[in-house]
Amino acid sequence: MIRTSRRLADGREIVYYDVDGSTAARDAPDPRDLPSVSTHSQLRWDALQGEWVVYAAHRQTRTFLPPADECPLCPTRPGRPPTEVPESDYQVVVFENRFPSLATAVDPDVPPAAPGAPYALQRPGQGRCEVVVFTSDHDRAPADLPVERLRLLVDVWADRTEALSGLDGVEYVFPFENHGEEIGVTLAHPHGQVYAYPFLPPRAARVVASIERHRAETGGDLFAEVVAAERGGPRVVASNEHWTAFVPAAARWPYELQLFPHRRVPDLPALSGAERDALADALRDALGRFAHRFDEPMNYIAAWNQAPVRRAREDWWLHLQLFSLRRAPGKLKYLAGSESGMGAFISDTTPEDVAEQLRATTW
Amino acid sequence: MIRTSRRLADGREIVYYDVDGSTAARDAPDPRDLPSVSTHSQLRWDALQGEWVVYAAHRQTRTFLPPADECPLCPTRPGRPPTEVPESDYQVVVFENRFPSLATAVDPDVPPAAPGAPYALQRPGQGRCEVVVFTSDHDRAPADLPVERLRLLVDVWADRTEALSGLDGVEYVFPFENHGEEIGVTLAHPHGQVYAYPFLPPRAARVVASIERHRAETGGDLFAEVVAAERGGPRVVASNEHWTAFVPAAARWPYELQLFPHRRVPDLPALSGAERDALADALRDALGRFAHRFDEPMNYIAAWNQAPVRRAREDWWLHLQLFSLRRAPGKLKYLAGSESGMGAFISDTTPEDVAEQLRATTW
Repeated sequence: MIRTSRRLADGREIVYYDVDGSTAARDAPDPRDLPSVSTHSQLRWDALQGEWVVYAAHRQTRTFLPPADECPLCPTRPGRPPTEVPESDYQVVVFENRFPSLATAVDPDVPPAAPGAPYALQRPGQGRCEVVVFTSDHDRAPADLPVERLRLLVDVWADRTEALSGLDGVEYVFPFENHGEEIGVTLAHPHGQVYAYPFLPPRAARVVASIERHRAETGGDLFAEVVAAERGGPRVVASNEHWTAFVPAAARWPYELQLFPHRRVPDLPALSGAERDALADALRDALGRFAHRFDEPMNYIAAWNQAPVRRAREDWWLHLQLFSLRRAPGKLKYLAGSESGMGAFISDTTPEDVAEQLRATTW
Repeated sequence: MIRTSRRLADGREIVYYDVDGSTAARDAPDPRDLPSVSTHSQLRWDALQGEWVVYAAHRQTRTFLPPADECPLCPTRPGRPPTEVPESDYQVVVFENRFPSLATAVDPDVPPAAPGAPYALQRPGQGRCEVVVFTSDHDRAPADLPVERLRLLVDVWADRTEALSGLDGVEYVFPFENHGEEIGVTLAHPHGQVYAYPFLPPRAARVVASIERHRAETGGDLFAEVVAAERGGPRVVASNEHWTAFVPAAARWPYELQLFPHRRVPDLPALSGAERDALADALRDALGRFAHRFDEPMNYIAAWNQAPVRRAREDWWLHLQLFSLRRAPGKLKYLAGSESGMGAFISDTTPEDVAEQLRATTW
């Protein structure tokens, strides 16, 4: 993999990733006149829930959005206004979000607590938000990318994880993809994101607590027990030499798959070459099942659950969580009172049924 | 308040609530021929998240739904097919959901764990799900109900809380309302629900843990500190003699209000008559602000956060959480990768701005 780091007109980093042997120079300058990025992101502690909430009020005034008919993720091509990517073609490209929720350069003078609420601690919203563009082809769905491109993407995610894990104050690196208009995705061009959080996000924090509680109560190793049980269990959907995809025993979304590597690793950078090859295959299979379960491709969120940067790394087990809010053709699961109000998920199906459906999906 | 309990054709309980002095007999029989309700609801333990998930697969086959043009919550009137409510008129009526997520009569022979996954403990989905119909007027929005009706509704919620708290195995009683088509509400007739859970739902469990952690770390009383700070703070939206409505310091939804009584009580049954009167006024004010913030009424979820039935009752402080996913006219906040995948909420506004907007809302 060839990695070429450049700067955009406003100082943001852009990194081109090309497979070995590529000869493109990746040196096109950004011709735009952009104001420098300013962020006033801050965190507040929700004392009753015991969770950080991010406030990125500067995102309300996104004044430099491109016109709706011009995709900012397409390459910059002659005769059209320049996009976020100066090159006229690329394989995979990553750049800092122009309106990030978390940023390396933040106002350091955040008061220690919210106005009038000493328990609502505040911190600067330090971190980084990146956009990962999967292909220069605007109309290619991720499920239809060639396996070689998915293989490159695995290397990119691993590289971004290493790079962002090294930034000051970053506690968690989260590569993810939101896919589908019906869940609010406004840019059709195939892309994902990477968030580097300055705190342990609630889901990861709950997993760490569960691991510790399980060990204290049973002496057991929770992730090892889950992987051992599910690899041979009734909810397996697909597997190859290095990965197994299964519907988790207590799935909460209408469609949900978890992909675990057979060897315990904390995060993407720890995967071997052979494991990365097998992941590209497993990913193509999983995305294909979601795309073909119904006549229309399902919306989905693909979420990499990596070990925290500084905690519980020995106890963790890397996995991808792939889930959809589509419960039937044209029908979404809405998170209403029980889910959004109380956090109690109610499913109208069973994980075993869903596994059977996804196993039977062909294309 | 007059409380009249009857049975529907399939054995479900229906309870009519009328203000004192009403003379209607509420003795109309249910003329329908309904099969008895059967539920196979069960709970599974999500070992990695440390949360129960409810599976109600029987809800998939809801074979007795009324035709789309016939509202099942309207009174039963001559010349039209019978609805869920046998009476030809009513004030407030409560009945057991015909397709409940949780039920008193459940299959007791649930295996102790999910197939092949010993850590995914299972229990019967014991509990109760009720529908609360606010008025016989199909077209009346809750925000436009007369204050006397809201006052009756407060008594109804309190009565249901007492009744459901007394059921075997119930750990938490949750009155709530989902409002608005854009969040998936299919029945336009004004109504809410009450869920009686056989476990502490995740949000309530996190609050209990936060109270205990705060006391251990600071010696303080978290709810008392929150109410003292917010009552005089910059995020107050409205208040009366017994209630204050404020945007919480770490609000996570685009619009969010919490209503706290000034006197510490664990739940709705503990409210005095004067506090209930003042709540009806405060509720009407809060719903009005949500209805008139934009030209079109906002969708919302209204969620009563009561003390658990058997835990932390001295430490709790009853409050209503009222929140909307509407972030601007025609625009919803979608819960995407950060929120749905990692539980990390990102807000494009600040609680202080939202408080200012809701304070300035008039109608």
